[in-house]
Amino acid sequence: MAAEASRQAVHDLRDEVLRLLERHRVLASLASRQQTPRHDLLEQMQRRQNLVELQRHLRAQHPADVAAILDSLPGDDRLLVFRQLGPEQAGASLVEASDAVRASLIGELDREELVTALRTLDADDLAFLSGEAPDDVLEEASQSLAAQDRSWLKGARDYEEDSVGRLMTQDVVAVRETQTVAEVLDDLRKRREIPDQTDRLFVVDARQILRGVIPLHMLVRTDPATRIRDVMLGNVERFTPAAPAAGAATAFEKYDLVSAPVVDERGKLVGRITIDRVMDYLREAAEQMALTRAGLRGAEDLFAGVRQSVHNRWPWLALNLVTAFFASRVISQFEETIASVVALAALMPIVASMGGNTGNQTVALVIRALALDQLHEQHGQLVRKELTVSLVNGLMWGAVTGLLAFALYHDAALGAVMMAAVLLNLIVAAVTGIAVPLILHRARRDPAQGASVMLTFITDSMGFFLFLGLARLLLV
Amino acid sequence: MAAEASRQAVHDLRDEVLRLLERHRVLASLASRQQTPRHDLLEQMQRRQNLVELQRHLRAQHPADVAAILDSLPGDDRLLVFRQLGPEQAGASLVEASDAVRASLIGELDREELVTALRTLDADDLAFLSGEAPDDVLEEASQSLAAQDRSWLKGARDYEEDSVGRLMTQDVVAVRETQTVAEVLDDLRKRREIPDQTDRLFVVDARQILRGVIPLHMLVRTDPATRIRDVMLGNVERFTPAAPAAGAATAFEKYDLVSAPVVDERGKLVGRITIDRVMDYLREAAEQMALTRAGLRGAEDLFAGVRQSVHNRWPWLALNLVTAFFASRVISQFEETIASVVALAALMPIVASMGGNTGNQTVALVIRALALDQLHEQHGQLVRKELTVSLVNGLMWGAVTGLLAFALYHDAALGAVMMAAVLLNLIVAAVTGIAVPLILHRARRDPAQGASVMLTFITDSMGFFLFLGLARLLLV
Repeated sequence: MAAEASRQAVHDLRDEVLRLLERHRVLASLASRQQTPRHDLLEQMQRRQNLVELQRHLRAQHPADVAAILDSLPGDDRLLVFRQLGPEQAGASLVEASDAVRASLIGELDREELVTALRTLDADDLAFLSGEAPDDVLEEASQSLAAQDRSWLKGARDYEEDSVGRLMTQDVVAVRETQTVAEVLDDLRKRREIPDQTDRLFVVDARQILRGVIPLHMLVRTDPATRIRDVMLGNVERFTPAAPAAGAATAFEKYDLVSAPVVDERGKLVGRITIDRVMDYLREAAEQMALTRAGLRGAEDLFAGVRQSVHNRWPWLALNLVTAFFASRVISQFEETIASVVALAALMPIVASMGGNTGNQTVALVIRALALDQLHEQHGQLVRKELTVSLVNGLMWGAVTGLLAFALYHDAALGAVMMAAVLLNLIVAAVTGIAVPLILHRARRDPAQGASVMLTFITDSMGFFLFLGLARLLLV
Repeated sequence: MAAEASRQAVHDLRDEVLRLLERHRVLASLASRQQTPRHDLLEQMQRRQNLVELQRHLRAQHPADVAAILDSLPGDDRLLVFRQLGPEQAGASLVEASDAVRASLIGELDREELVTALRTLDADDLAFLSGEAPDDVLEEASQSLAAQDRSWLKGARDYEEDSVGRLMTQDVVAVRETQTVAEVLDDLRKRREIPDQTDRLFVVDARQILRGVIPLHMLVRTDPATRIRDVMLGNVERFTPAAPAAGAATAFEKYDLVSAPVVDERGKLVGRITIDRVMDYLREAAEQMALTRAGLRGAEDLFAGVRQSVHNRWPWLALNLVTAFFASRVISQFEETIASVVALAALMPIVASMGGNTGNQTVALVIRALALDQLHEQHGQLVRKELTVSLVNGLMWGAVTGLLAFALYHDAALGAVMMAAVLLNLIVAAVTGIAVPLILHRARRDPAQGASVMLTFITDSMGFFLFLGLARLLLV
């Protein structure tokens, strides 16, 4: 199917699901109103038939598509739809769903339902869910795994979040360096299946130490009598389970990897990371960053409960109140000045917001440079450049705002104060815009998270202080 | 090599390059001061030797690593380093470098240098650079391509930016549905090379119409006498060149693809997209979005010139001045009120900023839902939820800020006005936070770009208006 057609198919399915859900609600509300037994029976039959139709629609779908539908439904409907899925589909769509939706489903499902769904998953998927599903549920769901898989799962769960260990899977195709190409091909034919994203096989020695890789296409094109050792690629990008996932993601991007081996500290092959997991990781990380920047802490989905939403949002509002309160105290120091030149009250937000905006531009550039690991030993150069830019901008925009103030209030001194304050605040913004992310970075905190609040706090307070301070000196 | 080691190696290389660059500068400045011919000769030799050392260091590196170093150097050094690269390495690192750095290099290199570097690239890479390098340079660089590649390049350059056509490559391995597995394996062995990210071969009929795909691992494991037609997978995700790249990227993520066929409107196989290009596309798009949100239009790199930086930043500052000016006009309507209760001037930024912050939280949620295509026909439900959240938050934070105002100014009426204004502005913020991104989305504009400015504009203006308006009614 073409991509557009597939997208359309998901939309159609969602519309169909919404229609059936609506009918389900209507039937349910009718049932609760009319209490005669005969009607009741008839309606129960209708409702059941309706649900069967819903099941029929859902069960033909790819788990990723079902997950997309779950993501777009409000809580109650989501639960109802999830309960119409077969156990395997339920397990797979739980893995595919977004963090927030998965968390809400795990929270609302009965323990039994959850175990039934999770029991269909393999050790890799269960490891992926660890930390999200309750430990005892995972424990019970993993009972059906082979002993080897269970011990693998136990190991994987011990790695920190956002580590390579959490991303890796155990479905590795490893071959011995002493085998011939013909023997390897023979082994491959005997396997029941080859895991997805297997673009190359990992080559190990007798002690399971990673020696190299051999791409599948090379295997296909090499003389069958050749030893693997003689054709394998030895210099291969590898990762340890404890390493940060972000570093692995960068390597995947940089070297265009599809799969890469994970080895322990002695070089023994313990697993594999694949590009699909790396992409999921990058996507989740990018989304989380966008939400965090706006001050949403955790996994809040669009239809989360009010209680959860309020809880999720309050720390940001509290922080914001503290900073706004401080800026307000700065202003209150100048109440006398404002009382005598009341135009200052109307003009001061302009000074603050010009500073906040230019400062955030600088912050965005510095954060990107830090993320791409581009900033080394050239701080002086960066500061000179940003200072020059802010000087040019400050003179230009200072003049514009100064003229504007003069035009509005016919007061040349007021215009001059405005101009000077904007110029100075833009310089403050440039210095702060560089310093804040660098300081956060050096303190090993994520600059994307706090830099913007801190910057706005400083440009607001300084904007008010500079403008009102200059006004007190020059106007009153 | 382990990933940490590779990262360390890049750092070491950069340090070495920086050291050599520094020595180069010292020698150059010495040379410009002492003008005696003999010294000159000696220093020229030293400088040359220094550059040779730089070349030796650079030429052993992966183009991706060289590109990372180019990205992290200021303009002059970048050019100097680039000029030490061999033509092939120069071409490849130009492809790997970030948009901004590539643009600056293309702008500063001589025409000849650029042509020499680009001549080493294949049609796919040249297509990738089209729109960035001047047309006549591309034309000249493509002279060395085979006629077929040249016509392919010409076609690819006609596709719009951010379309599948721009992402696709022509290095496709296609097989006939009537061939046997043995024949295909034989053909593969005869090929000089197989392109990277070839996880499956594309199956076509005699008219080059795409019929299906066959994964490499399936090829390896199937009886050689089998016809491709009988083992290929028929239902395959495919794309047209004119389709948006974003849609293809979503499909790659959702269905864990490594490569996918591109077909024309008649179903004829015309190219291939691979996961590495999709990742590059997603990364560039995410970075661009982060910069755009902060009001940086285009490709500004960390060490861009002052002139370019000022140019890049002014539209945002102009827009911001207009909105700040409007908010200032709102305040000025209440100058009399402020003159009589000057505390209002100090408190009003709190009302505005509480609104701006909660509103941006809502905006972030709605934008994410739109990006993930999760929002359909459930606007009513969303509005109800966000209104309830803002009501709860408004009552809570209204009470806190009201008490704060009372504590500061010992004026119960002022506290009440503060409380009411915060409550109302949070409700305004919720409604605006939903409406603005939805309206932008419906107008087919990117909500990530303008939503935050528009929202802040409304919550600022309304915050001032509500607070000062209530104060005029109740306090004066």
